[in-house]
Amino acid sequence: METKFTVALVQMAMSADSEENLGRALEKIRQAARAGAQVICLPELFRWPYFCQREDAALFDLAEPVPGETTRAISPLAAKLGVAVVVPVFERRSAGVYHNSAATIDADGQIAGLYRKMHIPDDPLYYEKFYFAPGDLGFQACTTRFGRIGTLICWDQWYPEAARLTALRGASILFYPTAIGYHPREKDTCGPAQRQAWETVQRGHAIANGVYVAAVNRVGHERPAGGEGLIFWGGSFLCDPLGTVIAQASPDKEETLLGTVDTKWLEEVRRGWPFLRDRRIDAYEGLQSRWLGEEKDSPQRAQRTRRKRKKVDR
Amino acid sequence: METKFTVALVQMAMSADSEENLGRALEKIRQAARAGAQVICLPELFRWPYFCQREDAALFDLAEPVPGETTRAISPLAAKLGVAVVVPVFERRSAGVYHNSAATIDADGQIAGLYRKMHIPDDPLYYEKFYFAPGDLGFQACTTRFGRIGTLICWDQWYPEAARLTALRGASILFYPTAIGYHPREKDTCGPAQRQAWETVQRGHAIANGVYVAAVNRVGHERPAGGEGLIFWGGSFLCDPLGTVIAQASPDKEETLLGTVDTKWLEEVRRGWPFLRDRRIDAYEGLQSRWLGEEKDSPQRAQRTRRKRKKVDR
Repeated sequence: METKFTVALVQMAMSADSEENLGRALEKIRQAARAGAQVICLPELFRWPYFCQREDAALFDLAEPVPGETTRAISPLAAKLGVAVVVPVFERRSAGVYHNSAATIDADGQIAGLYRKMHIPDDPLYYEKFYFAPGDLGFQACTTRFGRIGTLICWDQWYPEAARLTALRGASILFYPTAIGYHPREKDTCGPAQRQAWETVQRGHAIANGVYVAAVNRVGHERPAGGEGLIFWGGSFLCDPLGTVIAQASPDKEETLLGTVDTKWLEEVRRGWPFLRDRRIDAYEGLQSRWLGEEKDSPQRAQRTRRKRKKVDR
Repeated sequence: METKFTVALVQMAMSADSEENLGRALEKIRQAARAGAQVICLPELFRWPYFCQREDAALFDLAEPVPGETTRAISPLAAKLGVAVVVPVFERRSAGVYHNSAATIDADGQIAGLYRKMHIPDDPLYYEKFYFAPGDLGFQACTTRFGRIGTLICWDQWYPEAARLTALRGASILFYPTAIGYHPREKDTCGPAQRQAWETVQRGHAIANGVYVAAVNRVGHERPAGGEGLIFWGGSFLCDPLGTVIAQASPDKEETLLGTVDTKWLEEVRRGWPFLRDRRIDAYEGLQSRWLGEEKDSPQRAQRTRRKRKKVDR
């Protein structure tokens, strides 16, 4: 396996016509491959406008199995071009069981990995808990022809646990297909800090884990439920294991970013800052708690601390 | 308890004279209190030049118990001024058992908490594994007169697990007493990216956890072991729960930063971005592993995935 591979981050705007979105994604995959891309990532739920802006049970009709229409359209193209593609899908597993998923199609056209979004948001106009059951496949990486990659989806990007577990599975790069934007009335006030936080926390994952990170967002002002809708903020970016941004897209235009994942650089960074060596895996049990809180301090814990301090004095 | 409190980050340069360092720290505590500070944090191992630049068993003589000389000097001042102080100490527990610790002295002069650095680095000129046994008190927060705070130390700042666990204990702010700098020959080449990464990963902790973060570094070019030594990069900063930097110090001057911790703002941020609600505590077990790697994929895991996918097709 080569030590370097080229990735493409496809920042798109979505129309109401899912066939058109698919056709345009296929064309963008062709263009990216021509430009030298080997692993190509599409945005979250790229077949549709971001429909989660309202709760409507009729929209479960949009879901499809994996493999299904979308993966079957992309698999032969991936095989023909010899590229791997991260394909976000609104996945139907059964009546009443739907997921926000990403299938990784390898360069032979086979599905090499399936990830089901683990962290499901629910905010005004992001009513995802209505549509998506939480993923049950855990945090994964998969080996493509070009390198080992991890897929996570949107809300996952705020969770250091997700990045860490995927990195520990050997991913050289974490792809985050995304649909994040402003509420129009907040764009000028809260928007800049929100967008900055979104970028910072993901660069933090790159640094803490010594991996590349690729965030792949959509653009456009979408109002599928009427009202003010959401303005997706684009800004897709690729950063290296030091958290340095290598490439970044505009806030409002379709754009395909190309960049190199260099596993030798990744190893050099991890040798210089050997964070993985010093993790206190004996002391992380509490991460499986919802909240630890003050109550744990007392009385047992406080007493234990007092005992320990007494010993010091002796 | 008030919803706001004022913190002070004391960025210092250390001389070879530990009495002088203590005297100057006391003076800086007085000044900060006069300026309105309520919780004051000193830099890591502030009594000494950063002695870990060489391995010398004679230097264990520098260690002291907790309570000990340093805390006994600061406790009455804290009580007199009515301020809480985070006091880094080279802690001697017993012959052969030393820690890199931070005692939190509350505004009544009592020791309210003791933290022993959990993640111990070992890099050229940062030979900490020689000096410090890994902490055994876990990740903690403690309640001061003004608010609930968490203490972590330097290398801990690269570990999302440390920040998360301390936040889950109810800390409104994470203090990181620090001693980080450049190797002089790397300052111009690698330095800017290193310093940027250091800041970014800590801002990431603030964002992911919805807490304030205070990094308190030293300044100065120190060569206690001869050679080129280390240039400590200062840049102490306070950021809010959105990761926005509220105050930042220079790279090379002594400076005391003041800032406000507003627990109402903290709660507003966590309501807007309710990350703690959606953590997948059922799926984080792997965080207690050193490495998960590719081997886990196969054959069992691959088979399980195949079975799951078959079910989808049915």
